[in-house]
Amino acid sequence: MEPGKLDPGEVRFFCGSSNQPLASQIAEYLGVPLDPTHISNFSNSNLYIQLGASVRGRRVYIVQSLSPPADEHLMELMMMLDIARGASAREIHAIIPYFSYARSDKKDAPRISITARLVADLLQTAGATHAMSMMLHSPQVHGFFSIPVDPLSSRPVLEQYFRNKDLSDTVVVAVDMGHAKSAARFAKNLGLPVAAGNKERVSDTEVRISGIVGDHVRDCQRALLYDDEIATGGSVYEISRMLIQAGIKEIWVACTHGVFTKGGLDRLAAVPQITEIIATDTVHLPEHRLHPKLHTVSVARIFGEAIRRNYLRRSIGDLFVFGEKEAE
Amino acid sequence: MEPGKLDPGEVRFFCGSSNQPLASQIAEYLGVPLDPTHISNFSNSNLYIQLGASVRGRRVYIVQSLSPPADEHLMELMMMLDIARGASAREIHAIIPYFSYARSDKKDAPRISITARLVADLLQTAGATHAMSMMLHSPQVHGFFSIPVDPLSSRPVLEQYFRNKDLSDTVVVAVDMGHAKSAARFAKNLGLPVAAGNKERVSDTEVRISGIVGDHVRDCQRALLYDDEIATGGSVYEISRMLIQAGIKEIWVACTHGVFTKGGLDRLAAVPQITEIIATDTVHLPEHRLHPKLHTVSVARIFGEAIRRNYLRRSIGDLFVFGEKEAE
Amino acid sequence: MEPGKLDPGEVRFFCGSSNQPLASQIAEYLGVPLDPTHISNFSNSNLYIQLGASVRGRRVYIVQSLSPPADEHLMELMMMLDIARGASAREIHAIIPYFSYARSDKKDAPRISITARLVADLLQTAGATHAMSMMLHSPQVHGFFSIPVDPLSSRPVLEQYFRNKDLSDTVVVAVDMGHAKSAARFAKNLGLPVAAGNKERVSDTEVRISGIVGDHVRDCQRALLYDDEIATGGSVYEISRMLIQAGIKEIWVACTHGVFTKGGLDRLAAVPQITEIIATDTVHLPEHRLHPKLHTVSVARIFGEAIRRNYLRRSIGDLFVFGEKEAE
Amino acid sequence: MEPGKLDPGEVRFFCGSSNQPLASQIAEYLGVPLDPTHISNFSNSNLYIQLGASVRGRRVYIVQSLSPPADEHLMELMMMLDIARGASAREIHAIIPYFSYARSDKKDAPRISITARLVADLLQTAGATHAMSMMLHSPQVHGFFSIPVDPLSSRPVLEQYFRNKDLSDTVVVAVDMGHAKSAARFAKNLGLPVAAGNKERVSDTEVRISGIVGDHVRDCQRALLYDDEIATGGSVYEISRMLIQAGIKEIWVACTHGVFTKGGLDRLAAVPQITEIIATDTVHLPEHRLHPKLHTVSVARIFGEAIRRNYLRRSIGDLFVFGEKEAE
Amino acid sequence: MEPGKLDPGEVRFFCGSSNQPLASQIAEYLGVPLDPTHISNFSNSNLYIQLGASVRGRRVYIVQSLSPPADEHLMELMMMLDIARGASAREIHAIIPYFSYARSDKKDAPRISITARLVADLLQTAGATHAMSMMLHSPQVHGFFSIPVDPLSSRPVLEQYFRNKDLSDTVVVAVDMGHAKSAARFAKNLGLPVAAGNKERVSDTEVRISGIVGDHVRDCQRALLYDDEIATGGSVYEISRMLIQAGIKEIWVACTHGVFTKGGLDRLAAVPQITEIIATDTVHLPEHRLHPKLHTVSVARIFGEAIRRNYLRRSIGDLFVFGEKEAE
Amino acid sequence: MEPGKLDPGEVRFFCGSSNQPLASQIAEYLGVPLDPTHISNFSNSNLYIQLGASVRGRRVYIVQSLSPPADEHLMELMMMLDIARGASAREIHAIIPYFSYARSDKKDAPRISITARLVADLLQTAGATHAMSMMLHSPQVHGFFSIPVDPLSSRPVLEQYFRNKDLSDTVVVAVDMGHAKSAARFAKNLGLPVAAGNKERVSDTEVRISGIVGDHVRDCQRALLYDDEIATGGSVYEISRMLIQAGIKEIWVACTHGVFTKGGLDRLAAVPQITEIIATDTVHLPEHRLHPKLHTVSVARIFGEAIRRNYLRRSIGDLFVFGEKEAE
Repeated sequence: MEPGKLDPGEVRFFCGSSNQPLASQIAEYLGVPLDPTHISNFSNSNLYIQLGASVRGRRVYIVQSLSPPADEHLMELMMMLDIARGASAREIHAIIPYFSYARSDKKDAPRISITARLVADLLQTAGATHAMSMMLHSPQVHGFFSIPVDPLSSRPVLEQYFRNKDLSDTVVVAVDMGHAKSAARFAKNLGLPVAAGNKERVSDTEVRISGIVGDHVRDCQRALLYDDEIATGGSVYEISRMLIQAGIKEIWVACTHGVFTKGGLDRLAAVPQITEIIATDTVHLPEHRLHPKLHTVSVARIFGEAIRRNYLRRSIGDLFVFGEKEAE
Repeated sequence: MEPGKLDPGEVRFFCGSSNQPLASQIAEYLGVPLDPTHISNFSNSNLYIQLGASVRGRRVYIVQSLSPPADEHLMELMMMLDIARGASAREIHAIIPYFSYARSDKKDAPRISITARLVADLLQTAGATHAMSMMLHSPQVHGFFSIPVDPLSSRPVLEQYFRNKDLSDTVVVAVDMGHAKSAARFAKNLGLPVAAGNKERVSDTEVRISGIVGDHVRDCQRALLYDDEIATGGSVYEISRMLIQAGIKEIWVACTHGVFTKGGLDRLAAVPQITEIIATDTVHLPEHRLHPKLHTVSVARIFGEAIRRNYLRRSIGDLFVFGEKEAE
Repeated sequence: MEPGKLDPGEVRFFCGSSNQPLASQIAEYLGVPLDPTHISNFSNSNLYIQLGASVRGRRVYIVQSLSPPADEHLMELMMMLDIARGASAREIHAIIPYFSYARSDKKDAPRISITARLVADLLQTAGATHAMSMMLHSPQVHGFFSIPVDPLSSRPVLEQYFRNKDLSDTVVVAVDMGHAKSAARFAKNLGLPVAAGNKERVSDTEVRISGIVGDHVRDCQRALLYDDEIATGGSVYEISRMLIQAGIKEIWVACTHGVFTKGGLDRLAAVPQITEIIATDTVHLPEHRLHPKLHTVSVARIFGEAIRRNYLRRSIGDLFVFGEKEAE
Repeated sequence: MEPGKLDPGEVRFFCGSSNQPLASQIAEYLGVPLDPTHISNFSNSNLYIQLGASVRGRRVYIVQSLSPPADEHLMELMMMLDIARGASAREIHAIIPYFSYARSDKKDAPRISITARLVADLLQTAGATHAMSMMLHSPQVHGFFSIPVDPLSSRPVLEQYFRNKDLSDTVVVAVDMGHAKSAARFAKNLGLPVAAGNKERVSDTEVRISGIVGDHVRDCQRALLYDDEIATGGSVYEISRMLIQAGIKEIWVACTHGVFTKGGLDRLAAVPQITEIIATDTVHLPEHRLHPKLHTVSVARIFGEAIRRNYLRRSIGDLFVFGEKEAE
Repeated sequence: MEPGKLDPGEVRFFCGSSNQPLASQIAEYLGVPLDPTHISNFSNSNLYIQLGASVRGRRVYIVQSLSPPADEHLMELMMMLDIARGASAREIHAIIPYFSYARSDKKDAPRISITARLVADLLQTAGATHAMSMMLHSPQVHGFFSIPVDPLSSRPVLEQYFRNKDLSDTVVVAVDMGHAKSAARFAKNLGLPVAAGNKERVSDTEVRISGIVGDHVRDCQRALLYDDEIATGGSVYEISRMLIQAGIKEIWVACTHGVFTKGGLDRLAAVPQITEIIATDTVHLPEHRLHPKLHTVSVARIFGEAIRRNYLRRSIGDLFVFGEKEAE
Repeated sequence: MEPGKLDPGEVRFFCGSSNQPLASQIAEYLGVPLDPTHISNFSNSNLYIQLGASVRGRRVYIVQSLSPPADEHLMELMMMLDIARGASAREIHAIIPYFSYARSDKKDAPRISITARLVADLLQTAGATHAMSMMLHSPQVHGFFSIPVDPLSSRPVLEQYFRNKDLSDTVVVAVDMGHAKSAARFAKNLGLPVAAGNKERVSDTEVRISGIVGDHVRDCQRALLYDDEIATGGSVYEISRMLIQAGIKEIWVACTHGVFTKGGLDRLAAVPQITEIIATDTVHLPEHRLHPKLHTVSVARIFGEAIRRNYLRRSIGDLFVFGEKEAE
């Protein structure tokens, strides 16, 4: 770490209710206190929030993941932004480790919402002057924001995790062709080959993995399944079955956002060949929802370092995930 | 009803998940179909909404109460507004029978949010071009909106309900001095005397009714308790006890927004002297939460008539609740 | 006073023509000069204004009360804000001791303007980035502003004034039920009982005080009439007559904003039992309009302290008037 | 007049207090009623305005000149615009026959306001969706508005007036070189020669006419002094003296905006050689301020026709005053 | 075609200088005249544009492709939008057959511009109220616009073209994995197999096709190369060489936007196996830049039909290209 | 030069491709490096720009003249502004030595654009927070900007140039009456008499100089022709012919913006009596377009000094060109 510290008198650091452990670690990395926030509900279910430290003229950072229940966590975040603005904060940074709405980034049917754009606009209306997030579903979501955004990458911590392991006979597998490029870069950094599932939409509600593109699978014993977000884990489950049929003996599942809803974690963990499930802590799982096969690696250092450099006005481009360059 | 109908080809009428029965009745009053809306959740808890009829160039009305769970109902509404805008609707009317956030209309502590203003701004960001609501917590909330707002009154239907009853020996009682003016007008229209509870804040979390202002209580057998919104019903319960001590034999409880959370309805209904609880249908209560003492009067006709006149460009001032005129 | 001073090189301090004496005192409290402003009229009655000190990159404070003639004072303020913005000021603070338009805070008739909201928007259009005011007519007016607002309280200086007097046998009387809560808090701080006038609107142009709520009046010799703003003084005059009929021997009249138009001051002063009229200096009265019974207490210290803490980024919540907390 | 009428059910036509006679004539031309407006002042000098006809979904036209007292007339106009917007008008047209602030169209000193731009922004904030005005001080003022503007010309009615007179031996004289182009076009249409005064600023407060440019003056008996706006009439008075010295026997003074403040009209009328003073009715002069030498020609027909064509979506370019074309 | 026509009195239809032939055909399809536009340059190179028909209260459609020179074509479009707004048009539709900036849709390096978002904002600032475009580079670009956008598909006309040909032994080949999904849908509609080139970035300026994914190539005689935009044609050229090496005997090259710069068309046409190059007319090529192997299919009917339905307020979803649905 | 320097760590200084020599000189004056910018074109003609130094939290200055090709230079500037904003710059200053669009400052025909206002709005949309320019075509253009603007004057450097010469028997001649005031001030500072050409529009495309106003011409041997911008030089050529006919023996041509298109420079230089053509370097002319008679004086010092004082928050009013004061 280069020298340079935050002045605690200059900074206020808050978090919503979605991921207090991550916020605490970021605050610790930065050497500033996590300021208290009072969050409760009125009897009509409306939120009541009070920030516990004066923000007048300060740089305010608010950490909140838009994990389930997403709407409530969004409303918390917007109210906190609004409070900071109304109380004359100088800068208001929305630190959103998991920006779940990024998946709604285009119209794939008539009369639906490009919700990621809507939420970007709502956050600005509520008072955000800058945002940070991690591994947005598509790099174009960056362009939905009118305020500056720093899109951070989780790859360094995931790569670090795997560099400490024996990677022989291993192939990186992207669940979907759409993420093949991202997986390829991950594989390249680890010196591994890459393959991808060919996901097809069978009907409005059903998706099928019709095959695996890439010959390397047959030559390998182990697959490192790589995805950006896992909720029910349906696709991962299906592609795991195909990999096993193709002769793979061991599967590691790695993702950035481990949402793990509707029994998704247990379902994957029940597959014997899946020996490890690795996720970052952008989404907080309470203790009772953890599983012995689940390994969590923290992105606190990345968010902390990005905030530190933002504060010190240093470039943070090397912490970014840039969209893949294309060329004609 | 004056003549004049909506052209169904010109209008699209939708509702969120909060109060479909009321929306259906309004649509019926207007003679237009309630257009279908598909609402579901992605596995990461994000909402997915699709409007089921083309809105291009149409006047779109969206009915949604911000009843519990308020944040989810708000997000539904904002996404529906956004869809209508993105699909080139000509006018987008947010019909919000119960605008719960109106209670957060001022700063009564440092570093809290005037959430009613925030939500007014969010609705405009999401695409609303006009709003209708009913019995806003304070008349000033009207001024939080940058778009035109029609603040409707529930008094006509409540008064109608009581006009059919024997009102002898009855006094109207406001729960709080802050609503004494509104109660006084209600009482005057029914030809009844008025009194008010003197609510005092004991501590941050506790409130006490310290007495009842007005001599009429001693001369009456029956009290008509009048409030704008009842959730847990704590204040109503307490003032009822005082009225009973003061000799009142029968109590009718009337309110516009019957939120009835945390067992509030059962608690009130358990008081023998409370023989009737009257609420409008701005908040929808599922069947299992109803109680024999609860009588619901519908405001569908008022919303329907306001929409009809808005459509026909007629004045709807006589359906409004105007703030009380003051004078020096 | 805590330590901490304004850097005169960092600050520019101006005032319009409405209340130069107050502005001078605030500047003195802050230890900065009151920078000159040239204000004149073109022959077609348009205002011509020139600020007399460079504001480039500075924090600019502009003091202006919206006292009569309110429209001209508003236009002065807006032009001064516009000049500061066009000349690259860094922050532009509108310090508005008397925000008269706050009385138009709701629609109490069809097709009128919620002028307080309009003026809040106009001030932002003109360039204000922050505002301070005192004793807004209702706490909700705070929410009409899109920029941060500090709503200051005059109670400390009024209470200080009365603490030095013999308060035995005295009751605080609010002119109107609508301000009973505010009066109650004032009374509580002085350890006095409270009562309130029951003001009723007889017709569009006539208002009548129909009685006084509260039994304490009969037990007291002296009444302390408490209101936020007095212009013609009609209501105060009427309630004084009732108090005298009820046996009150001496009346002190206290208000924040002493507008005193149309002979209002002389009319009140002519009542023998009214021995003192106390107002703050949010509205400037020229010497020839003063009266021996009028005592003015200055709020310069409160505005000065609020500006000082704003500058030093300290909390100023204890100088605020918070809306009354309500509870169900 | 081409066929085509306004549908009175579609249109609402109001005016502020500045120029009701002109508004009445425009309304008459259009065949629609002048809808009533209630304007009064609260005792604290704030304006209270109520529009007297429902505007919901209508096209609203509001006529108001920004003549003295300009600030009050501006505030009236802004409140009327705000009311129309808040009451759901479909279009809101600000008809401003005399836009006095247009004279503040540039910075000719540091730290002053380009007030014409500020007012253009304020009108939009208040709700105007379109504006009409006449003979703006400079054609660039058009570009200060973000909403569409129709800048109308008074020349047709002034030319019509003079065409009925004997124009032999007459020269058109512009008071200032800055308006020479406009005067030249006027002269050309009447088939007359043109000359111009050479106005020089002596000091901040004093201006001197140092001479007259153009040889025609010596050959003529009569001068037609042409200006856009006359207030105190100082420059006109001075140039008249020079013209008389140069041998001119009779002077006609013509202007669009006859503001005539500070005795300006009487001063000019006292010059024996000035036999006629012609102004339009963009500024209303009450009867007691009129003078026998003053002839008023009405622009009601021009505003009426412009509104009619706007309503009927016909081109109104031939009613405009276009900025002079320049060329390299 | 369903019945329903545009009212020529209601509509104004203009085009910039980029693609007048396409605009003429769309106008013809719609049965409205293509209104004249005068476009020239001042001697300092600034554009001078005058619209040749009154737009007051009309629905204005402006057709302009952002083809080379893109900046000049963009400026033409923005000035035309601005003119329409300033002249009181009711709706202003930007019809942009080729939105070239869509390729800059993400940050793939630090300190570059997401130019597609910038241009979307500029078009709104200039006055556009609605936009139509075709085959945007990525479906997320839709979300960059704050105004409603209709993203049209060219597939119907391209498919129609190929349906008339012998498609035996033919495989559809996407130039890049990134467009494999779009190609797959195209192939599916024609009942053909699909393959894709594996494009890799070698350095900042160099890209290499490292192979072809999909086994069908070996079984086929003919390849249908499918891309959204071809400029220099470098990638198409390279993949063609690989296909020929792999045994392909005949190549058809098809794209939506045939930009064909820097000799790109001649270079491709010089390959003997490339027997046909098919492009739509979203980009206009002057006669001297055409080539006998180039076949142009017109999208005029699609734009015309989309405008017609927009005008008639009918759904145009079936003319859209929706982003691919994804699923977990 | 007063003391005070820019902190190079605080400032980033870039330029577009229009005038790198001037930008370099300004940077040198300021003692900061000219940071690199990469500008290239995609094959579809779209611009690709990357700023070569981190701007996070910095004050960014971008120098770009809108000289031919104006549209491309404008797009470069807007993209650079957008990049700076997206990369979290603190202030973004658009330094535009030659704002060519200023000539389109009014509507002199129906359905044209006030392009100067449009461009002012576009620059703000793209991210500019402050602008500097020089000798705007009319002072009102200042009011088209919503952001603060510093309109600088070139007169000091031009006057300095002529003060070193023998000015006996010399008259300053404005090409057009419209610029007579500006020329008069220039003449006054040099102690010279002034005259002006009388330019008349003959038809839409033709302009004629009909004469010269001012008697001094006959008494002088030398004319100093003074204009703000020269492109083809047509008017200058014509008035030179008239001056020669009137007996002038030598002509110096001076202007701020030497655009010199379409052989304008050679045409003027071919007139024997024109012995010198003086222009500033707001427009960069490549070496091959220079001419021995052309003398360039640099405004780098003026821009540098204005930036320095802006940075140091000192008044820069004495570097401005203020619009001429007018008076009635």
